[in-house]
Amino acid sequence: MKIICKKTDLAKAVQTVAKAVPAKATTSILECLLLRAEKEEITLTGNNLELGIETVMPGNIEEEGSIAIQAKVFGEIVRKLPEGDVVLETGEKDQATVRCKKTKYNLSVKSAEEYTCIPDMERKNHVTISEFDLKEAIRQTIFSVADTSSKKAMTGELWEINGKELKIVALDGHRISLRKIKLKKEYEPRKVIVPGKTLAEIIKIIGGDPEKEIAVYFTENHIQFEIENTRAISRLIEGEYLKVEQLLSKDYGTKIKVQKKELQECIDRASLLLKDDAKKPIILNIEENILSLEAVSNMGSMNESMFVVKEGEKLRIGFNPKFLLEMLRVIDDEEVFMYFTSAKTPCTVRDEKDSYVYLVLPVNLSAAA
Amino acid sequence: MKIICKKTDLAKAVQTVAKAVPAKATTSILECLLLRAEKEEITLTGNNLELGIETVMPGNIEEEGSIAIQAKVFGEIVRKLPEGDVVLETGEKDQATVRCKKTKYNLSVKSAEEYTCIPDMERKNHVTISEFDLKEAIRQTIFSVADTSSKKAMTGELWEINGKELKIVALDGHRISLRKIKLKKEYEPRKVIVPGKTLAEIIKIIGGDPEKEIAVYFTENHIQFEIENTRAISRLIEGEYLKVEQLLSKDYGTKIKVQKKELQECIDRASLLLKDDAKKPIILNIEENILSLEAVSNMGSMNESMFVVKEGEKLRIGFNPKFLLEMLRVIDDEEVFMYFTSAKTPCTVRDEKDSYVYLVLPVNLSAAA
Repeated sequence: MKIICKKTDLAKAVQTVAKAVPAKATTSILECLLLRAEKEEITLTGNNLELGIETVMPGNIEEEGSIAIQAKVFGEIVRKLPEGDVVLETGEKDQATVRCKKTKYNLSVKSAEEYTCIPDMERKNHVTISEFDLKEAIRQTIFSVADTSSKKAMTGELWEINGKELKIVALDGHRISLRKIKLKKEYEPRKVIVPGKTLAEIIKIIGGDPEKEIAVYFTENHIQFEIENTRAISRLIEGEYLKVEQLLSKDYGTKIKVQKKELQECIDRASLLLKDDAKKPIILNIEENILSLEAVSNMGSMNESMFVVKEGEKLRIGFNPKFLLEMLRVIDDEEVFMYFTSAKTPCTVRDEKDSYVYLVLPVNLSAAA
Repeated sequence: MKIICKKTDLAKAVQTVAKAVPAKATTSILECLLLRAEKEEITLTGNNLELGIETVMPGNIEEEGSIAIQAKVFGEIVRKLPEGDVVLETGEKDQATVRCKKTKYNLSVKSAEEYTCIPDMERKNHVTISEFDLKEAIRQTIFSVADTSSKKAMTGELWEINGKELKIVALDGHRISLRKIKLKKEYEPRKVIVPGKTLAEIIKIIGGDPEKEIAVYFTENHIQFEIENTRAISRLIEGEYLKVEQLLSKDYGTKIKVQKKELQECIDRASLLLKDDAKKPIILNIEENILSLEAVSNMGSMNESMFVVKEGEKLRIGFNPKFLLEMLRVIDDEEVFMYFTSAKTPCTVRDEKDSYVYLVLPVNLSAAA
């Protein structure tokens, strides 16, 4: 194999596929990426057996062939090469040379045959989503995916397509995040659970351009994203996802409209006192058009009040400040509407267009005191 | 006590003195800073018993008094307050309130009497140094101070004043860094060992302005820095510092002039292969006006060559790449002169004006192979 390509193109391609290569794996071939120069295309592949990423990059193929190469070291080497043309060539005995200007590396490589390629997928029935919409919707929900859970489904996001809408739901037992994306045309109904770890990597390779589109393909066990020259294919999570609709009722006893930034900064200030004691709640006291926040810990206490527009009953309710902050951070509106029914039932935050709903469970104040 | 001050002034003052407050200490009073409002001055103090920092800040004293307050939490609270006037007031039972706009904190504080104040120093015989010169000279030497050592003196820097010159030396058994600062007038000869930990904090509070000056005072056991409204006082290290002059001989068998940036980037690239094996050296091969660098590890090998101006014998010599990189990073010249005598004796790097000397011990190539 011998290829010649621009350093910047190679660096970008390696960086993309390396997102699917684990830093440490049980066998060294899993720490490799696959580089193929075949049929007039240079293709790089990373694969951790749950998520696989493949990208086609520009360059000249002087001799066809393929190798597997340690992804981390190769990535660092390519990144630090001088700007210019890179010549990558296989030599004897599982060796490859990387040359760029006056720099020459000899690296141990592995046979491409050892490498587990990513499956080809039947490319039909795809859904088209704008890069920007998808990147935003993932960012605005992924923080509430459970890291680990006895219920495997909770470590993923529910993606549900219905007509001209994609609904994304993430939950972890303390909160629910729901975002809706409007699609440009109508699609068949479909419901899958996408692993949170997959989405954490996918979000890094989506550019976020509102004018560019991503094609998403589904099979029974896989989801595939096509993002320009890159395709990422991931296993889906089997099983049933919690039905959240009944939890997201629109009934309420108290509703407030609050300046998001003001609330966010205030919770941020209050949580300074609560950091060392995760069980201590921040208390929201809803009075006549005044929201006052209180925090008490062994370090001291804090209170602050702000004007809000209130509808319904007065209420005193406590929350884990982290859950409120993580939710407020991903809401782009300047004003948010918060709905409450009682001090022991969840608070929901939703916009009037119904494009998002967030639900946060309260802390039992009598138990916390 | 009651004071009113600007949030930004308070935040800056807390940040300055907090550099001398340990995050975790054996007694909680050591994690505090002292705040005094006395004799028309608001003074903040941090003290870890080796280094003490005291700063005077603007503000109005409505009632004199003093308190000790947990530095970390207080610092975070002040930093996150809204912009505006802060009112700090003591209340009952070791409590203080911090108010700013609609935010109010109640914090536990301690009696100022528990706090160990920093000693006053006889303010005579000071040396005046430009902020820029001192900050640079510390940055350019401190990386080679030993973190820990059976020889306590090696955990500090030798500061030696002779006539119109301050010489700063740091060494750790593998390398020596030496910088000279020209002073504006002549001073009495003086030789002290300043703790590396003190200098690591001092460098953060020196602004680096070439037009501003720092006054440095010495006593037998202490050094004091006066930087605008702030004074920092540190214990000195007792004992004898290694005599480095005899090690920094100007004899050489080989001399090269090399482009610093080119060499630095090349060593950086080579060290990618050596990272996992700290004992593997980078090899410098000095030929007729060509310097070629080699690195070999179980990951592969690398070589690269560059033009140099050579004088004297050919030489093949190995180094720990980290030591070369850390030295090159703090040399601002575009070209550096490297002097060698043999493959088993140190390399020195010095400029023609003799304002700096760096010495690095080589790695024994036959032992490393």
